[in-house]
Amino acid sequence: MNNLSQQSCSACEIGAPLVPKDQINSLLANLDGWAVEDSSIDRLLKKYTFQSYAEALEFTKLIADLAESEGHHPKITLEWGLVSLEWWSHKIKGLHMNDFICATKSDEIYSSL
Amino acid sequence: MNNLSQQSCSACEIGAPLVPKDQINSLLANLDGWAVEDSSIDRLLKKYTFQSYAEALEFTKLIADLAESEGHHPKITLEWGLVSLEWWSHKIKGLHMNDFICATKSDEIYSSL
Repeated sequence: MNNLSQQSCSACEIGAPLVPKDQINSLLANLDGWAVEDSSIDRLLKKYTFQSYAEALEFTKLIADLAESEGHHPKITLEWGLVSLEWWSHKIKGLHMNDFICATKSDEIYSSL
Repeated sequence: MNNLSQQSCSACEIGAPLVPKDQINSLLANLDGWAVEDSSIDRLLKKYTFQSYAEALEFTKLIADLAESEGHHPKITLEWGLVSLEWWSHKIKGLHMNDFICATKSDEIYSSL
């Protein structure tokens, strides 16, 4: 489970299994700064800070590229100096392994800036 | 007040006057589909729909360009087929004429796609 950035998102069909709660906790332990948002639908949430609007926009574009390449699209909220990312799987209304893979890749993109 | 797209944002300093409530209502009447979000801080909110992620991303980039050129930055939330825009003025914790100018220009950008 430590090589999530080497994996790609699989097709997430209606009825695919949610990541079990105990596995969510162990996966979270291997992520940096991600939390499960408290809502009726579990979502992985992280806020990334930037020194300028241009940098935040560049990160947004790179995450959008990731979304298209994985066929999996997060909620991206762009503000001055801040990008908030939320990953979850709409079809199963919760967290799929795809979300942890994309959270890991998001961190790699942030680190590469 | 009908030529908002011809105006540019002015510097919004701490202590600048909020747009009065009655003027907000008349300005809203001249906007298409914008509403004032119900929160402790008045914000102009509109949701724009798109047929593809690429189109939503293109709109996001154009709004970011507008934000940089006006020196006024909205909250932009990008999802698949949907961009939500929120304009408000942080320094005065409410609505400045700048927000109505930028809402109008946002609609023009959307119409130009």
